[in-house]
Amino acid sequence: MRSEMSKPEELVFGTTLSDHMLMIEWSKEKNWMDPRIIPRQDLNISPAASSLHYGIQCFEGMKAYRSIADDSIRLFRPDMNMKRLSSSMDRLQMPGFDFNHSQLIDCIENLVLLDQKWIPEGEGYSLYLRPTVIATHKFLGLAAPDSLLLFCITSPVGPYYKSGFAPIRLTTDTPYVRAWPGGTGAAKVGGNYASTMKPQAEAAAKGYSQVLWLFGDDESITEVGSMNVFFFLINKETSRPELVTAPLDRGDILPGVTRDSILQLTRSWGEFDVSERFPTMPEIAQAAKEGRLIEAFGAGTAAVVTPISCIEYQGNDIEIPATGKLTQRIWDEITGIQYGKIEGPEGWSIPIGDHQ
Amino acid sequence: MRSEMSKPEELVFGTTLSDHMLMIEWSKEKNWMDPRIIPRQDLNISPAASSLHYGIQCFEGMKAYRSIADDSIRLFRPDMNMKRLSSSMDRLQMPGFDFNHSQLIDCIENLVLLDQKWIPEGEGYSLYLRPTVIATHKFLGLAAPDSLLLFCITSPVGPYYKSGFAPIRLTTDTPYVRAWPGGTGAAKVGGNYASTMKPQAEAAAKGYSQVLWLFGDDESITEVGSMNVFFFLINKETSRPELVTAPLDRGDILPGVTRDSILQLTRSWGEFDVSERFPTMPEIAQAAKEGRLIEAFGAGTAAVVTPISCIEYQGNDIEIPATGKLTQRIWDEITGIQYGKIEGPEGWSIPIGDHQ
Repeated sequence: MRSEMSKPEELVFGTTLSDHMLMIEWSKEKNWMDPRIIPRQDLNISPAASSLHYGIQCFEGMKAYRSIADDSIRLFRPDMNMKRLSSSMDRLQMPGFDFNHSQLIDCIENLVLLDQKWIPEGEGYSLYLRPTVIATHKFLGLAAPDSLLLFCITSPVGPYYKSGFAPIRLTTDTPYVRAWPGGTGAAKVGGNYASTMKPQAEAAAKGYSQVLWLFGDDESITEVGSMNVFFFLINKETSRPELVTAPLDRGDILPGVTRDSILQLTRSWGEFDVSERFPTMPEIAQAAKEGRLIEAFGAGTAAVVTPISCIEYQGNDIEIPATGKLTQRIWDEITGIQYGKIEGPEGWSIPIGDHQ
Repeated sequence: MRSEMSKPEELVFGTTLSDHMLMIEWSKEKNWMDPRIIPRQDLNISPAASSLHYGIQCFEGMKAYRSIADDSIRLFRPDMNMKRLSSSMDRLQMPGFDFNHSQLIDCIENLVLLDQKWIPEGEGYSLYLRPTVIATHKFLGLAAPDSLLLFCITSPVGPYYKSGFAPIRLTTDTPYVRAWPGGTGAAKVGGNYASTMKPQAEAAAKGYSQVLWLFGDDESITEVGSMNVFFFLINKETSRPELVTAPLDRGDILPGVTRDSILQLTRSWGEFDVSERFPTMPEIAQAAKEGRLIEAFGAGTAAVVTPISCIEYQGNDIEIPATGKLTQRIWDEITGIQYGKIEGPEGWSIPIGDHQ
């Protein structure tokens, strides 16, 4: 039954794919066509398809989890992924962006059910889901595509952390900029990622895991690698503890599902201030110097949270106490909800078949 | 012989493709493999290929011309396209970016020779060449690709202007920004184009052909649509005529082959000042008001030059005398060189088989 499968403990993120894939085509004449689930196979794409030339492509990252508490397979806030996929398509002027979110969740659920043997058992394991929309329009001019393909492939993944958290070391010292107001930083589109490969390689060559992206003359902190980023510190003005992450209204921050979940959860606790505002690098450096920086972590679907242990800034390393209590608590809460051990807010952890 | 071909006068840019394509694969183990010219066909691409998810793709636009003066088929400055393709690949951290430029020109020439019946005769007609490099790496993680495909397809195109120049009307009133220093604006990569589809559609809905892209608080003028842009004006400081286009050193301007050719040509004439500096919208608005703005035009491979007749700025239309003498002269010179009627600078118009 698991003939092609790796042993779960040997899984490497994004390399093993399950047996089937979802395919839904859109054309100007026929609009969205009937969804098909077919054996996973290579795509036949015209060499003139505008997804290959003009980056007309967007995607989502989601996971299906085997509940620890019962027999269910669960998705985590899939409505958020549908909303973002629609918004990414709209940003790229893709027609069909107003698809029915609930119907697409149904299709994805059917795919997961068919390939459910590919979801390894045990906490930390999941089936990574990758809904993707590409332009298939055969046209070398630059135009809104007259045909699209929405497909979803899935990939079993193991625990992000094999033996406790693995804190990451970051650098801010890069000449590159990830995103800007008026660009595509708030959409999950291919172009945002291609541009980060070289900065990432240069950071790695200096011994840092990721780039911590700054923007503008005030060096506001936007994201880390391809995650959102949070700082937990004692605010200089208020002398109160504050959890800070970048706001969405400037349009250069990806509206992460994990980001939103952390904001909602920590606000519901009511134990400290929770702010959506841009922390600046001078502010963080000063907080670290004055002992007011408590924790820092990245947040995203793949890792949930990733503690940050060091930030290079203007040639100096700012060391941060690794993996504090807050990072651990957020991890416990969110993974607890994802695996059905903890009852989360309504609609967060949805057994397949139960979504609205 | 022309069974599948449209009548030359009915050609629509980018829709008709010739019979063959060039394919060259790269892998980590084998480096660049032997080039193959095969019948044009759909590509088989893994649904996990990183070109479809992370925008790891770049391309070039070139043309092959039938000489008016002799029997030769000519390319225009293909070395510039090779240099830019290499630099785009490097920006995306694509391995193999240090390919042999001359060998790739040879391969492209062989493709053009095989499909030479697809090059329509007559001035204004050409075979558009689209060398493209995509990542074929099957991996859902974000990493430098371990496999690439370089392919080239070709498409016969007719005259850009059917009956004299067709001046374009532009708007600067858009919330979008094309490129940013530290981004990918200087590379010919997919992500730069996908992001302009929505701004373009919004401009069209207001009755303008293209967006004139501004950048920064000083509203410096960077590009128009997907072309470079030139202004010919009487400089306020010097009272001398000056041809101005944006400089490359900020890293947000595509180094266009036509742009470079116009700079070299007009400098060789020695008749007016030629400047690579950022014109600003307030400067252009003032020049127009004071009668000092003589001409404005876009520059690119598809159109060579495109006169600009109007620029919307802060809700008002600035009208510009359409198609002046300079635009026409540059058109005559460059197309004259491309079609072998005029002897251009050494290495510009190269009969196939003659490049170094």
